[in-house]
Amino acid sequence: MPNLNPNLAATIPPPVMEARRWIADATFTPDRPLLNLSQAAPADPPPAPLRQAMADIVMTDPAAHMYGDVLGLPALRDRVAADWTRDYGGTVRADQVAITSGCNQAFAAAIATLARDGDNVILPVPYYFNHKMWLDTVGVDARILDTGDDLLPDPSAAAALIDDRTRAIILISPNNPGGVEYPADLMAAFRDLARTRGIALILDETYRDFHAVDGAPHALFTDPDWDDTLIQLYSFSKAYRLTGHRVGAILAAPSRLREVEKWLDSVAICPTGLGQRAALWGMENLGDWLAGERREILRRRTAIADGFADRADWPLLGCGAYFAYVMHPFDLPSDRVARALVDRAALLLLPGTMFGPLRSDGGSGRAERSLRIAFANADADGIATLFNRLDEVAESGL
Amino acid sequence: MPNLNPNLAATIPPPVMEARRWIADATFTPDRPLLNLSQAAPADPPPAPLRQAMADIVMTDPAAHMYGDVLGLPALRDRVAADWTRDYGGTVRADQVAITSGCNQAFAAAIATLARDGDNVILPVPYYFNHKMWLDTVGVDARILDTGDDLLPDPSAAAALIDDRTRAIILISPNNPGGVEYPADLMAAFRDLARTRGIALILDETYRDFHAVDGAPHALFTDPDWDDTLIQLYSFSKAYRLTGHRVGAILAAPSRLREVEKWLDSVAICPTGLGQRAALWGMENLGDWLAGERREILRRRTAIADGFADRADWPLLGCGAYFAYVMHPFDLPSDRVARALVDRAALLLLPGTMFGPLRSDGGSGRAERSLRIAFANADADGIATLFNRLDEVAESGL
Repeated sequence: MPNLNPNLAATIPPPVMEARRWIADATFTPDRPLLNLSQAAPADPPPAPLRQAMADIVMTDPAAHMYGDVLGLPALRDRVAADWTRDYGGTVRADQVAITSGCNQAFAAAIATLARDGDNVILPVPYYFNHKMWLDTVGVDARILDTGDDLLPDPSAAAALIDDRTRAIILISPNNPGGVEYPADLMAAFRDLARTRGIALILDETYRDFHAVDGAPHALFTDPDWDDTLIQLYSFSKAYRLTGHRVGAILAAPSRLREVEKWLDSVAICPTGLGQRAALWGMENLGDWLAGERREILRRRTAIADGFADRADWPLLGCGAYFAYVMHPFDLPSDRVARALVDRAALLLLPGTMFGPLRSDGGSGRAERSLRIAFANADADGIATLFNRLDEVAESGL
Repeated sequence: MPNLNPNLAATIPPPVMEARRWIADATFTPDRPLLNLSQAAPADPPPAPLRQAMADIVMTDPAAHMYGDVLGLPALRDRVAADWTRDYGGTVRADQVAITSGCNQAFAAAIATLARDGDNVILPVPYYFNHKMWLDTVGVDARILDTGDDLLPDPSAAAALIDDRTRAIILISPNNPGGVEYPADLMAAFRDLARTRGIALILDETYRDFHAVDGAPHALFTDPDWDDTLIQLYSFSKAYRLTGHRVGAILAAPSRLREVEKWLDSVAICPTGLGQRAALWGMENLGDWLAGERREILRRRTAIADGFADRADWPLLGCGAYFAYVMHPFDLPSDRVARALVDRAALLLLPGTMFGPLRSDGGSGRAERSLRIAFANADADGIATLFNRLDEVAESGL
């Protein structure tokens, strides 16, 4: 096509939409329905009390249907500040919180404040594909930070990648796609590195509600000057099953949020009135319910870890919150493995090739040998089915 | 602030948020409440049957709470294609339609497919501030296309601005902020110019539902090859009072929408499930209601035009759909006039300075002498109040 932005042309198509096309092209039988562990997407709608609250808001709160403040509903910003202060220690104020239309948008907004075409950021691998895609679309170079078999990035290796056009280090914990939970001291070391070099640390904690550690997973917010370096991202989608309502958050310095406000106004005007009120209702009323959800997901995590511990051909590199990241035993690249699992095992997992880097991009080949399993979507029966089907194809070959 | 994207730093803050702060700083009395004609925002929530339908969807349709296709709900894309084919003539197919999280996002997506940092587009003045803001944030130069007292842009003047880094011409009809409805042959002339020069014509028709002309406002879609040049933008916000649910659309070539899909996936994942279903329900059920809304808004337009016709000190440059664009009689720049109108007349209008270009940016000074009135938000009493208050301040001075 002529007249096309070359940055966008060089960006890959959405992996999740590609996976949806694999399913659309396949046929499944009633005795062997599709087991879809591709996306971090709760399989059920919000719990009934939250749906009822949302229906009431629709009928009785006119403001929920109208434009709101660009940086979000003040009551929700207040609530996030209060809960974060409680959960992380230190102090988070409402003017350090903005609400976004989902966490991808929070990431894009953060990058918009930091970097322009020709700048670069440090991105550990495997990466979350939407992060890489957004960086590609805006012409910001992703400097790939390799990780070992524990999937943990190394601050000294990151330091060697920083130059005068480096604007940020990107971390995700619990990790997507890797599932690994970064130790608190590792996050602090990255914060120190970023601060020393005058760049930002973007920490995506979309999956924080399902962290295995009780209490704060890091002490970054206890630093009174946290907002000179840290930009934290969050999503309400997973905790309250609000994926379709697009509500996320970005925590940063007020001066940076004034820049975020310009960008969000132009690209979104405001997050949805209903989604924000649903998130607030969830925070106010679903604490116990969410604690139960977390316990259930931690049980699923144990089942996944135990299952792979018994299967030496499937080395498990990371497992936590929503995801397991596992090496497959086949002599095929992971995109072909994933495609074959749909047809042969009625099982949708995402291949490591979607999370890069490919061997052709300088990667070690791990992308081609790995699969991401969004196990949190599967109950105990689903996890049993997963292992049965993996055993079948491991035995029969693909 | 260090470590800040200079493109975003050079972007103005959101004018609507600035205007909200003016209100927050003012006090109003019960006998003289604020008349807010600042934003194209329906004053009421969606009609009761639509609210009821939305509440039912919340309670009964799990899919409305979950991720959907990046390019939108297939049934809504089908419906837009069918209605556009009916309304505009020619043929619009569903694969030429994508749904976005509001029309600002549709604009940003269109620009993302076309232009990168250092490219330029042709932008008639006065411009819609969010268009200019987005172009500034992404480093795309807005080449200002002057207009005369009729606010109509001239294709030959546009032709003189095009160079080898020009990617698009931007038109809005009915215009925001000018209110003027572009003649069909003018839009065709711009389409021809864009096609000849191998660039895109972006036509924002957010306010099409309130156009004074019965039937199609242009014949662009009757060209079987329309999508080699035309990118049309639309919003469901005004027609069905869904501003807070963020639903818009972009119509373009399928090959361009594949690029849009990459960008939207990274910045939004998908439009909201509920907002899209509400828009679809509106299209299916509110045709007669919307026709009544249009008749009422056309009555308001007549009242505005008649009112200013009697007031020679307030030359009306444009009036249509949602907006009137009028010259004020004061010896003050329009931003100071607008600020004083809040305090002195309990009246919120947006100043021409928000729609540029300022004299300091090479403008003629019209921005400093003009005001935008979002009259469609005001009923007959509101419009009478508007004129009473303008007369008072014209007599007393500001």
